[in-house]
Amino acid sequence: MKSNRICVIFAGGPERGLPCIPVPAGAYLLCADSGLKLCSRLGLKPDLVLGDFDSLGAEPTALPHITAQPEKDDTDTMLAVRHALSEGFRDIRIYGAFGGRLDHTLANLQTLEFLRQNGASGMLIGAGDWACLLPAGETGRYVRQPDFTLSVFAWSGTCRGVCIRGTKYTLEQGELSRSFPLGVSNEITAEAAEVSCTEGVLLIAGSAAELTCRNAEP
Amino acid sequence: MKSNRICVIFAGGPERGLPCIPVPAGAYLLCADSGLKLCSRLGLKPDLVLGDFDSLGAEPTALPHITAQPEKDDTDTMLAVRHALSEGFRDIRIYGAFGGRLDHTLANLQTLEFLRQNGASGMLIGAGDWACLLPAGETGRYVRQPDFTLSVFAWSGTCRGVCIRGTKYTLEQGELSRSFPLGVSNEITAEAAEVSCTEGVLLIAGSAAELTCRNAEP
Repeated sequence: MKSNRICVIFAGGPERGLPCIPVPAGAYLLCADSGLKLCSRLGLKPDLVLGDFDSLGAEPTALPHITAQPEKDDTDTMLAVRHALSEGFRDIRIYGAFGGRLDHTLANLQTLEFLRQNGASGMLIGAGDWACLLPAGETGRYVRQPDFTLSVFAWSGTCRGVCIRGTKYTLEQGELSRSFPLGVSNEITAEAAEVSCTEGVLLIAGSAAELTCRNAEP
Repeated sequence: MKSNRICVIFAGGPERGLPCIPVPAGAYLLCADSGLKLCSRLGLKPDLVLGDFDSLGAEPTALPHITAQPEKDDTDTMLAVRHALSEGFRDIRIYGAFGGRLDHTLANLQTLEFLRQNGASGMLIGAGDWACLLPAGETGRYVRQPDFTLSVFAWSGTCRGVCIRGTKYTLEQGELSRSFPLGVSNEITAEAAEVSCTEGVLLIAGSAAELTCRNAEP
Protein backbone atom coordinates (compact mmCIF):
# COMPACT_ATOMS: atom_id res chain seq x y z
CA MET A 1 0.00 0.00 0.00
CA LYS A 2 1.29 3.42 -0.98
CA SER A 3 -1.36 5.54 0.64
CA ASN A 4 0.95 8.48 1.42
CA ARG A 5 2.01 9.06 -2.16
CA ILE A 6 -0.06 11.22 -4.50
CA CYS A 7 -1.33 9.53 -7.65
CA VAL A 8 -1.70 11.75 -10.72
CA ILE A 9 -3.96 10.43 -13.48
CA PHE A 10 -3.67 12.02 -16.91
CA ALA A 11 -7.06 11.92 -18.63
CA GLY A 12 -7.61 12.48 -22.31
CA GLY A 13 -9.16 15.96 -22.14
CA PRO A 14 -7.93 18.10 -25.04
CA GLU A 15 -6.53 20.82 -22.78
CA ARG A 16 -4.24 23.04 -24.78
CA GLY A 17 -2.88 25.18 -21.92
CA LEU A 18 -0.66 24.23 -19.03
CA PRO A 19 -2.51 22.79 -16.02
CA CYS A 20 -3.59 25.55 -13.64
CA ILE A 21 -2.02 23.55 -10.78
CA PRO A 22 1.45 22.06 -11.41
CA VAL A 23 1.88 18.28 -11.22
CA PRO A 24 3.25 17.49 -7.72
CA ALA A 25 6.87 16.29 -7.66
CA GLY A 26 7.28 12.64 -6.71
CA ALA A 27 3.73 11.67 -7.61
CA TYR A 28 2.93 8.30 -9.20
CA LEU A 29 2.08 9.13 -12.83
CA LEU A 30 -0.70 7.06 -14.39
CA CYS A 31 -1.93 7.78 -17.92
CA ALA A 32 -5.47 6.88 -18.97
CA ASP A 33 -5.06 5.97 -22.68
CA SER A 34 -4.55 9.20 -24.67
CA GLY A 35 -3.83 11.04 -21.40
CA LEU A 36 -0.27 9.99 -22.28
CA LYS A 37 -0.19 12.94 -24.70
CA LEU A 38 -0.65 15.48 -21.87
CA CYS A 39 1.91 13.66 -19.70
CA SER A 40 4.45 13.70 -22.53
CA ARG A 41 3.72 17.31 -23.39
CA LEU A 42 4.57 18.24 -19.80
CA GLY A 43 7.92 16.42 -20.22
CA LEU A 44 7.00 13.73 -17.69
CA LYS A 45 7.60 9.98 -17.88
CA PRO A 46 4.62 7.86 -16.85
CA ASP A 47 4.86 5.05 -14.28
CA LEU A 48 2.06 3.25 -16.11
CA VAL A 49 -0.20 3.71 -19.15
CA LEU A 50 -3.59 2.03 -18.91
CA GLY A 51 -6.42 1.68 -21.43
CA ASP A 52 -7.80 -0.18 -24.42
CA PHE A 53 -5.73 2.26 -26.50
CA ASP A 54 -8.57 3.06 -28.87
CA SER A 55 -8.01 6.75 -28.06
CA LEU A 56 -4.23 6.56 -28.36
CA GLY A 57 -4.41 4.43 -31.52
CA ALA A 58 -1.71 1.90 -30.56
CA GLU A 59 -0.24 0.20 -27.51
CA PRO A 60 2.64 2.28 -26.06
CA THR A 61 5.03 -0.69 -26.20
CA ALA A 62 8.09 1.29 -25.08
CA LEU A 63 6.41 2.25 -21.80
CA PRO A 64 5.06 0.25 -18.84
CA HIS A 65 1.47 -0.38 -19.84
CA ILE A 66 -1.58 -2.56 -19.20
CA THR A 67 -3.98 -3.20 -22.07
CA ALA A 68 -7.62 -3.34 -20.97
CA GLN A 69 -10.46 -4.99 -22.85
CA PRO A 70 -12.48 -2.60 -25.03
CA GLU A 71 -16.31 -2.55 -24.75
CA LYS A 72 -15.97 -2.15 -21.00
CA ASP A 73 -18.39 -0.34 -18.72
CA ASP A 74 -15.66 1.94 -17.41
CA THR A 75 -14.34 5.02 -19.14
CA ASP A 76 -10.55 5.16 -19.53
CA THR A 77 -10.37 7.53 -16.59
CA MET A 78 -12.54 5.30 -14.40
CA LEU A 79 -10.31 2.34 -15.26
CA ALA A 80 -7.29 4.34 -14.08
CA VAL A 81 -9.13 5.42 -10.92
CA ARG A 82 -9.92 1.80 -10.04
CA HIS A 83 -6.28 0.84 -10.61
CA ALA A 84 -5.07 3.71 -8.39
CA LEU A 85 -7.45 2.71 -5.59
CA SER A 86 -6.42 -0.96 -5.83
CA GLU A 87 -2.79 0.12 -5.51
CA GLY A 88 -3.64 1.87 -2.24
CA PHE A 89 -3.54 5.50 -3.38
CA ARG A 90 -5.90 7.75 -1.43
CA ASP A 91 -4.94 11.20 -2.84
CA ILE A 92 -5.76 11.12 -6.54
CA ARG A 93 -5.51 14.13 -8.86
CA ILE A 94 -6.86 13.91 -12.39
CA TYR A 95 -5.20 16.21 -14.93
CA GLY A 96 -6.74 16.99 -18.32
CA ALA A 97 -10.19 16.52 -16.84
CA PHE A 98 -11.88 19.45 -18.61
CA GLY A 99 -11.84 21.38 -21.83
CA GLY A 100 -13.35 18.71 -24.00
CA ARG A 101 -16.76 17.17 -24.35
CA LEU A 102 -19.43 17.85 -21.76
CA ASP A 103 -20.05 14.11 -21.23
CA HIS A 104 -16.42 13.57 -20.20
CA THR A 105 -16.56 16.55 -17.83
CA LEU A 106 -19.75 15.18 -16.24
CA ALA A 107 -18.25 11.68 -15.96
CA ASN A 108 -15.12 13.11 -14.33
CA LEU A 109 -17.23 15.01 -11.78
CA GLN A 110 -19.04 11.80 -10.87
CA THR A 111 -15.66 10.10 -10.51
CA LEU A 112 -14.98 12.52 -7.62
CA GLU A 113 -18.01 11.05 -5.84
CA PHE A 114 -16.76 7.51 -6.58
CA LEU A 115 -13.39 8.37 -5.02
CA ARG A 116 -15.06 9.87 -1.95
CA GLN A 117 -17.22 6.77 -1.47
CA ASN A 118 -14.05 4.68 -1.64
CA GLY A 119 -12.31 6.66 1.10
CA ALA A 120 -10.07 8.66 -1.23
CA SER A 121 -9.86 12.36 -1.96
CA GLY A 122 -9.89 13.51 -5.54
CA MET A 123 -9.26 16.66 -7.53
CA LEU A 124 -9.93 17.44 -11.18
CA ILE A 125 -7.49 19.80 -12.86
CA GLY A 126 -7.67 21.46 -16.25
CA ALA A 127 -5.95 24.39 -17.92
CA GLY A 128 -8.20 27.04 -16.42
CA ASP A 129 -10.33 25.17 -13.90
CA TRP A 130 -10.09 22.79 -10.99
CA ALA A 131 -12.82 21.06 -8.97
CA CYS A 132 -13.10 18.96 -5.83
CA LEU A 133 -15.74 17.80 -3.37
CA LEU A 134 -15.85 19.09 0.21
CA PRO A 135 -17.88 16.90 2.61
CA ALA A 136 -19.54 18.22 5.78
CA GLY A 137 -17.15 18.68 8.67
CA GLU A 138 -14.08 19.47 6.57
CA THR A 139 -12.79 22.99 5.96
CA GLY A 140 -11.43 23.85 2.53
CA ARG A 141 -8.79 26.56 2.37
CA TYR A 142 -8.19 28.19 -1.01
CA VAL A 143 -5.29 30.64 -1.41
CA ARG A 144 -5.88 33.83 -3.42
CA GLN A 145 -4.29 33.79 -6.87
CA PRO A 146 -4.37 36.28 -9.75
CA ASP A 147 -7.48 35.99 -11.95
CA PHE A 148 -8.86 33.07 -9.92
CA THR A 149 -12.46 32.97 -8.76
CA LEU A 150 -13.94 30.46 -6.37
CA SER A 151 -17.37 28.87 -6.85
CA VAL A 152 -19.26 26.85 -4.25
CA PHE A 153 -22.09 24.54 -5.36
CA ALA A 154 -24.30 22.03 -3.57
CA TRP A 155 -23.26 18.60 -4.83
CA SER A 156 -25.68 16.68 -2.62
CA GLY A 157 -29.34 17.69 -2.61
CA THR A 158 -29.11 20.43 0.01
CA CYS A 159 -26.06 21.65 1.91
CA ARG A 160 -26.70 23.27 5.30
CA GLY A 161 -24.55 25.32 7.65
CA VAL A 162 -22.51 26.58 4.70
CA CYS A 163 -19.79 29.11 5.59
CA ILE A 164 -17.86 30.97 2.89
CA ARG A 165 -15.27 33.35 4.37
CA GLY A 166 -12.47 35.50 3.01
CA THR A 167 -14.40 36.28 -0.18
CA LYS A 168 -16.23 39.27 -1.67
CA TYR A 169 -19.59 37.59 -1.05
CA THR A 170 -19.55 35.75 2.27
CA LEU A 171 -22.03 33.30 3.74
CA GLU A 172 -22.54 32.29 7.39
CA GLN A 173 -24.50 29.14 8.20
CA GLY A 174 -26.33 29.43 4.89
CA GLU A 175 -28.07 26.86 2.74
CA LEU A 176 -27.17 25.86 -0.80
CA SER A 177 -29.35 23.73 -3.05
CA ARG A 178 -28.71 22.10 -6.41
CA SER A 179 -31.37 24.26 -8.01
CA PHE A 180 -29.84 27.61 -7.22
CA PRO A 181 -26.24 28.44 -8.13
CA LEU A 182 -25.70 31.11 -5.47
CA GLY A 183 -21.96 30.85 -5.01
CA VAL A 184 -20.68 31.33 -8.57
CA SER A 185 -17.45 33.17 -9.42
CA ASN A 186 -16.71 34.64 -6.00
CA GLU A 187 -13.53 36.68 -5.52
CA ILE A 188 -11.08 35.73 -2.80
CA THR A 189 -10.36 38.96 -0.91
CA ALA A 190 -8.42 37.65 2.11
CA GLU A 191 -5.13 35.76 1.88
CA ALA A 192 -7.22 32.62 1.56
CA ALA A 193 -10.91 31.71 1.44
CA GLU A 194 -12.31 29.19 3.90
CA VAL A 195 -15.35 27.07 3.03
CA SER A 196 -17.23 24.49 5.09
CA CYS A 197 -20.67 23.02 5.71
CA THR A 198 -22.29 21.01 8.50
CA GLU A 199 -24.55 18.88 6.30
CA GLY A 200 -24.15 17.62 2.72
CA VAL A 201 -21.32 17.67 0.23
CA LEU A 202 -20.15 20.83 -1.54
CA LEU A 203 -18.62 20.98 -5.00
CA ILE A 204 -15.83 23.56 -5.10
CA ALA A 205 -14.62 24.94 -8.42
CA GLY A 206 -11.76 27.33 -9.05
CA SER A 207 -11.74 29.03 -12.43
CA ALA A 208 -9.47 31.40 -14.26
CA ALA A 209 -10.98 32.86 -17.40
CA GLU A 210 -7.71 34.44 -18.49
CA LEU A 211 -5.25 31.71 -17.61
CA THR A 212 -6.33 29.33 -20.36
CA CYS A 213 -5.78 31.86 -23.11
CA ARG A 214 -2.50 33.07 -21.72
CA ASN A 215 -1.07 29.56 -21.55
CA ALA A 216 -2.63 28.34 -24.75
CA GLU A 217 -0.33 26.88 -27.35
CA PRO A 218 -0.54 28.11 -30.92
CA MET B 1 -48.90 34.34 -20.42
CA LYS B 2 -47.08 32.95 -23.46
CA SER B 3 -46.61 29.40 -22.29
CA ASN B 4 -46.84 27.85 -25.75
CA ARG B 5 -43.98 29.85 -27.22
CA ILE B 6 -40.38 28.69 -26.84
CA CYS B 7 -38.04 31.12 -25.06
CA VAL B 8 -34.40 31.07 -26.18
CA ILE B 9 -31.89 32.57 -23.77
CA PHE B 10 -28.46 33.45 -25.12
CA ALA B 11 -25.88 33.02 -22.36
CA GLY B 12 -22.38 34.41 -22.47
CA GLY B 13 -20.45 31.18 -23.07
CA PRO B 14 -17.56 31.75 -25.49
CA GLU B 15 -18.77 29.19 -28.00
CA ARG B 16 -17.01 29.68 -31.28
CA GLY B 17 -18.94 27.20 -33.38
CA LEU B 18 -22.53 27.22 -34.50
CA PRO B 19 -24.98 25.78 -31.96
CA CYS B 20 -25.38 22.02 -32.43
CA ILE B 21 -29.17 22.54 -32.44
CA PRO B 22 -30.52 25.44 -34.55
CA VAL B 23 -32.46 28.22 -32.81
CA PRO B 24 -36.18 27.43 -33.28
CA ALA B 25 -38.02 29.80 -35.61
CA GLY B 26 -40.53 32.07 -33.89
CA ALA B 27 -38.94 31.73 -30.45
CA TYR B 28 -38.78 34.68 -28.04
CA LEU B 29 -35.11 35.72 -28.03
CA LEU B 30 -33.73 36.87 -24.68
CA CYS B 31 -30.06 37.80 -24.29
CA ALA B 32 -28.32 37.50 -20.93
CA ASP B 33 -25.79 40.37 -21.03
CA SER B 34 -22.93 39.39 -23.37
CA GLY B 35 -25.10 36.57 -24.75
CA LEU B 36 -26.08 39.34 -27.19
CA LYS B 37 -22.84 38.60 -29.05
CA LEU B 38 -23.91 35.03 -29.86
CA CYS B 39 -27.41 36.22 -30.86
CA SER B 40 -25.95 38.85 -33.19
CA ARG B 41 -23.42 36.41 -34.63
CA LEU B 42 -26.31 34.15 -35.60
CA GLY B 43 -27.90 37.12 -37.39
CA LEU B 44 -30.85 37.25 -34.99
CA LYS B 45 -32.52 40.29 -33.43
CA PRO B 46 -33.23 39.95 -29.71
CA ASP B 47 -36.65 40.64 -28.21
CA LEU B 48 -34.92 41.73 -24.98
CA VAL B 49 -31.40 42.14 -23.58
CA LEU B 50 -31.13 41.76 -19.82
CA GLY B 51 -28.19 42.19 -17.46
CA ASP B 52 -26.03 44.56 -15.48
CA PHE B 53 -23.98 44.87 -18.69
CA ASP B 54 -20.65 44.39 -16.94
CA SER B 55 -19.92 41.57 -19.37
CA LEU B 56 -21.11 43.48 -22.43
CA GLY B 57 -19.34 46.67 -21.34
CA ALA B 58 -22.18 49.11 -22.13
CA GLU B 59 -25.98 49.26 -22.20
CA PRO B 60 -27.30 48.20 -25.62
CA THR B 61 -29.32 51.40 -25.99
CA ALA B 62 -30.45 50.69 -29.56
CA LEU B 63 -32.17 47.46 -28.46
CA PRO B 64 -35.02 46.67 -26.05
CA HIS B 65 -33.18 46.14 -22.77
CA ILE B 66 -33.58 46.04 -18.99
CA THR B 67 -30.63 47.05 -16.83
CA ALA B 68 -30.32 45.00 -13.65
CA GLN B 69 -28.46 46.00 -10.50
CA PRO B 70 -24.93 44.64 -10.30
CA GLU B 71 -23.77 42.81 -7.11
CA LYS B 72 -26.82 40.61 -7.38
CA ASP B 73 -27.06 37.01 -6.20
CA ASP B 74 -28.13 35.82 -9.63
CA THR B 75 -25.85 35.13 -12.54
CA ASP B 76 -26.81 36.87 -15.79
CA THR B 77 -28.29 33.62 -17.06
CA MET B 78 -30.30 33.08 -13.87
CA LEU B 79 -31.67 36.62 -14.15
CA ALA B 80 -32.84 35.83 -17.69
CA VAL B 81 -34.35 32.52 -16.55
CA ARG B 82 -36.36 34.30 -13.82
CA HIS B 83 -37.58 36.84 -16.37
CA ALA B 84 -38.62 34.10 -18.79
CA LEU B 85 -40.54 32.24 -16.07
CA SER B 86 -42.27 35.45 -14.93
CA GLU B 87 -43.36 36.05 -18.54
CA GLY B 88 -45.01 32.63 -18.58
CA PHE B 89 -42.55 30.68 -20.73
CA ARG B 90 -42.35 27.01 -19.86
CA ASP B 91 -40.04 25.74 -22.62
CA ILE B 92 -36.71 27.46 -22.17
CA ARG B 93 -33.57 26.70 -24.21
CA ILE B 94 -30.27 28.24 -23.19
CA TYR B 95 -27.75 28.70 -26.01
CA GLY B 96 -24.05 29.38 -25.39
CA ALA B 97 -24.27 27.41 -22.16
CA PHE B 98 -20.95 25.58 -22.49
CA GLY B 99 -17.45 25.99 -23.80
CA GLY B 100 -16.28 28.47 -21.23
CA ARG B 101 -15.43 28.30 -17.57
CA LEU B 102 -16.35 25.24 -15.56
CA ASP B 103 -18.18 27.34 -12.95
CA HIS B 104 -20.55 28.72 -15.59
CA THR B 105 -21.18 25.23 -16.96
CA LEU B 106 -21.97 23.96 -13.45
CA ALA B 107 -24.23 26.94 -12.74
CA ASN B 108 -26.08 26.35 -16.02
CA LEU B 109 -26.64 22.69 -15.15
CA GLN B 110 -28.14 23.71 -11.80
CA THR B 111 -30.36 26.16 -13.66
CA LEU B 112 -31.96 23.13 -15.36
CA GLU B 113 -33.01 21.91 -11.91
CA PHE B 114 -34.34 25.38 -11.05
CA LEU B 115 -36.46 25.34 -14.21
CA ARG B 116 -37.77 21.87 -13.43
CA GLN B 117 -38.75 22.89 -9.90
CA ASN B 118 -40.61 25.84 -11.41
CA GLY B 119 -42.65 23.67 -13.75
CA ALA B 120 -40.66 24.46 -16.87
CA SER B 121 -38.54 22.30 -19.14
CA GLY B 122 -35.05 23.46 -19.99
CA MET B 123 -32.28 22.56 -22.37
CA LEU B 124 -28.67 23.74 -22.51
CA ILE B 125 -27.11 24.03 -25.95
CA GLY B 126 -23.51 24.64 -26.95
CA ALA B 127 -21.49 24.21 -30.11
CA GLY B 128 -20.80 20.52 -29.61
CA ASP B 129 -22.95 19.56 -26.62
CA TRP B 130 -26.48 19.74 -25.31
CA ALA B 131 -27.91 18.70 -21.95
CA CYS B 132 -31.33 18.34 -20.33
CA LEU B 133 -32.95 16.69 -17.33
CA LEU B 134 -35.33 13.76 -17.72
CA PRO B 135 -37.57 13.12 -14.67
CA ALA B 136 -39.04 9.71 -13.79
CA GLY B 137 -42.10 8.81 -15.85
CA GLU B 138 -41.06 10.72 -18.97
CA THR B 139 -39.50 9.11 -22.04
CA GLY B 140 -36.77 10.97 -23.86
CA ARG B 141 -36.41 10.24 -27.57
CA TYR B 142 -33.12 11.22 -29.20
CA VAL B 143 -32.75 10.92 -32.97
CA ARG B 144 -29.52 9.50 -34.37
CA GLN B 145 -27.24 12.10 -35.93
CA PRO B 146 -23.74 11.88 -37.43
CA ASP B 147 -20.95 11.98 -34.84
CA PHE B 148 -23.39 12.32 -31.94
CA THR B 149 -23.11 10.23 -28.80
CA LEU B 150 -25.65 10.07 -26.01
CA SER B 151 -24.72 10.00 -22.33
CA VAL B 152 -27.08 9.21 -19.46
CA PHE B 153 -26.16 10.24 -15.91
CA ALA B 154 -27.95 10.11 -12.57
CA TRP B 155 -28.74 13.72 -11.64
CA SER B 156 -30.56 12.84 -8.42
CA GLY B 157 -28.82 10.53 -5.90
CA THR B 158 -29.91 7.23 -7.44
CA CYS B 159 -32.05 6.60 -10.52
CA ARG B 160 -33.92 3.29 -10.66
CA GLY B 161 -35.76 1.47 -13.42
CA VAL B 162 -33.49 3.05 -16.01
CA CYS B 163 -34.09 1.93 -19.60
CA ILE B 164 -31.73 2.91 -22.42
CA ARG B 165 -32.83 1.51 -25.78
CA GLY B 166 -31.78 1.92 -29.39
CA THR B 167 -28.13 2.32 -28.43
CA LYS B 168 -24.95 0.21 -28.66
CA TYR B 169 -25.01 -0.37 -24.90
CA THR B 170 -28.57 -0.87 -23.69
CA LEU B 171 -29.98 -1.01 -20.18
CA GLU B 172 -33.26 -2.52 -18.95
CA GLN B 173 -34.60 -1.55 -15.52
CA GLY B 174 -31.07 -0.69 -14.38
CA GLU B 175 -29.80 1.58 -11.66
CA LEU B 176 -27.59 4.63 -12.11
CA SER B 177 -25.87 6.44 -9.26
CA ARG B 178 -24.01 9.73 -9.13
CA SER B 179 -20.81 7.95 -8.21
CA PHE B 180 -20.58 5.76 -11.28
CA PRO B 181 -20.72 7.21 -14.79
CA LEU B 182 -21.98 4.07 -16.53
CA GLY B 183 -23.78 5.61 -19.46
CA VAL B 184 -21.08 7.77 -21.06
CA SER B 185 -20.73 8.31 -24.81
CA ASN B 186 -23.18 5.69 -26.00
CA GLU B 187 -23.83 5.34 -29.73
CA ILE B 188 -27.36 5.58 -31.08
CA THR B 189 -27.79 2.53 -33.33
CA ALA B 190 -31.54 2.64 -34.01
CA GLU B 191 -33.34 5.51 -35.71
CA ALA B 192 -33.68 7.05 -32.27
CA ALA B 193 -32.67 6.18 -28.71
CA GLU B 194 -35.29 6.03 -25.97
CA VAL B 195 -34.42 6.71 -22.34
CA SER B 196 -36.59 6.61 -19.23
CA CYS B 197 -36.51 5.83 -15.51
CA THR B 198 -39.13 5.05 -12.88
CA GLU B 199 -37.42 6.83 -9.95
CA GLY B 200 -35.14 9.86 -9.82
CA VAL B 201 -34.02 12.42 -12.39
CA LEU B 202 -31.61 11.62 -15.22
CA LEU B 203 -29.22 14.08 -16.82
CA ILE B 204 -29.01 13.49 -20.57
CA ALA B 205 -26.09 14.86 -22.55
CA GLY B 206 -25.53 14.73 -26.29
CA SER B 207 -22.02 15.38 -27.49
CA ALA B 208 -20.32 15.67 -30.83
CA ALA B 209 -16.55 15.71 -30.65
CA GLU B 210 -16.16 16.58 -34.31
CA LEU B 211 -18.97 19.07 -34.76
CA THR B 212 -17.30 21.85 -32.78
CA CYS B 213 -14.18 21.79 -34.89
CA ARG B 214 -16.02 21.52 -38.17
CA ASN B 215 -18.20 24.51 -37.38
CA ALA B 216 -15.51 26.55 -35.68
CA GLU B 217 -14.85 30.02 -37.02
CA PRO B 218 -11.29 30.98 -37.88
